[in-house]
Amino acid sequence: MNMKKGIPVVISGPSGCGKGTIVKELLKKYPETFALSVSATTRSPRVGEEHGREYYFITKEEFERRIAANEILEYTTYVGNYYGTPKKELYERTEQGINVILEIEIEGGMNIRKLCPEAVLVFILPPSAKILEARLRGRGTNTDEDIKNRMTRAKEEILYAEKYDYVVINEEGGVEKAAEEIAEIVRAEQKKAARNKGIADRFFEE
Amino acid sequence: MNMKKGIPVVISGPSGCGKGTIVKELLKKYPETFALSVSATTRSPRVGEEHGREYYFITKEEFERRIAANEILEYTTYVGNYYGTPKKELYERTEQGINVILEIEIEGGMNIRKLCPEAVLVFILPPSAKILEARLRGRGTNTDEDIKNRMTRAKEEILYAEKYDYVVINEEGGVEKAAEEIAEIVRAEQKKAARNKGIADRFFEE
Repeated sequence: MNMKKGIPVVISGPSGCGKGTIVKELLKKYPETFALSVSATTRSPRVGEEHGREYYFITKEEFERRIAANEILEYTTYVGNYYGTPKKELYERTEQGINVILEIEIEGGMNIRKLCPEAVLVFILPPSAKILEARLRGRGTNTDEDIKNRMTRAKEEILYAEKYDYVVINEEGGVEKAAEEIAEIVRAEQKKAARNKGIADRFFEE
Repeated sequence: MNMKKGIPVVISGPSGCGKGTIVKELLKKYPETFALSVSATTRSPRVGEEHGREYYFITKEEFERRIAANEILEYTTYVGNYYGTPKKELYERTEQGINVILEIEIEGGMNIRKLCPEAVLVFILPPSAKILEARLRGRGTNTDEDIKNRMTRAKEEILYAEKYDYVVINEEGGVEKAAEEIAEIVRAEQKKAARNKGIADRFFEE
């Protein structure tokens, strides 16, 4: 009764919200139950790269067949090659009990909501616009123009927070807290009655 | 941005599932964020009882007015007095950030689902029918006939597990684990985007 299926977990948020650091912390703390999504690509493997670890290496024909068959959750092209998230490989990992993290843009997140209703969508929010701007300035590498553009974009993106399932606030110095909050959300989701169909029948069988 | 409203938390489960012990553990571990629902009653206060602590003591006329006005979530009568859960007092506590536990029967749970859509419904399940039966026998006070009846009732009740929001399994010796799982569920629920309407606006105001 306790073998839980893993859950696809979409993580999005504006530039500077700290989502990359939070995801790293989550993977470090829970290496056995969380993993990053492995993309499929049509580019050739480089030395040291392994099929199924860095990428799933497939042919262009196979990639296009999968797009047509609606087997790719979301994809993009870069320097003449396809990159995308294959459903089958994603589901093989969730079947093994692994929660698969997709750190993607909001547009991709909204696509996954439609294509993969069992996914959980988490939006990472800095504590306030002021703090987000201070963080972007603190990076030192951004010009005033850059910061203005990123803040405008953040403003547009944050409107989508309410279309996600959960909102996690990345407080100052709160990376570990935010990572643990995502882990908690996923553990709670695994107890949803809707994810445990047939539990009453199994109760009497065991 | 962090002051969270409390959530009404319905806890149900068959006789012998251990819900009473789990609720006690939860209240002990989180005395500031979890509290038991305080019922309203038309009976007179006894020595030492305080309005708003043991019960809300109200008149029969007031109780009946509240029933008619749909201000009582669920109620029953006992020895000529009304006992019920008043909405207003419940919401005063959730406004203060307190998660209010309602340890009630499935019928009451299903009523609260309709009357109070923000409530979270948690169903407590023993690990298996065999273990439930062993627990009932272990109490020593139940006759074979008793146990047979309770198992039949449990069978009917457990079918409702899938109508609840979450299912928590009370493993052998797992009272603390089950209590913490309920606390996690409530913390995750507080991060639901649907419970944080207007978060994007507040983000830019602060």
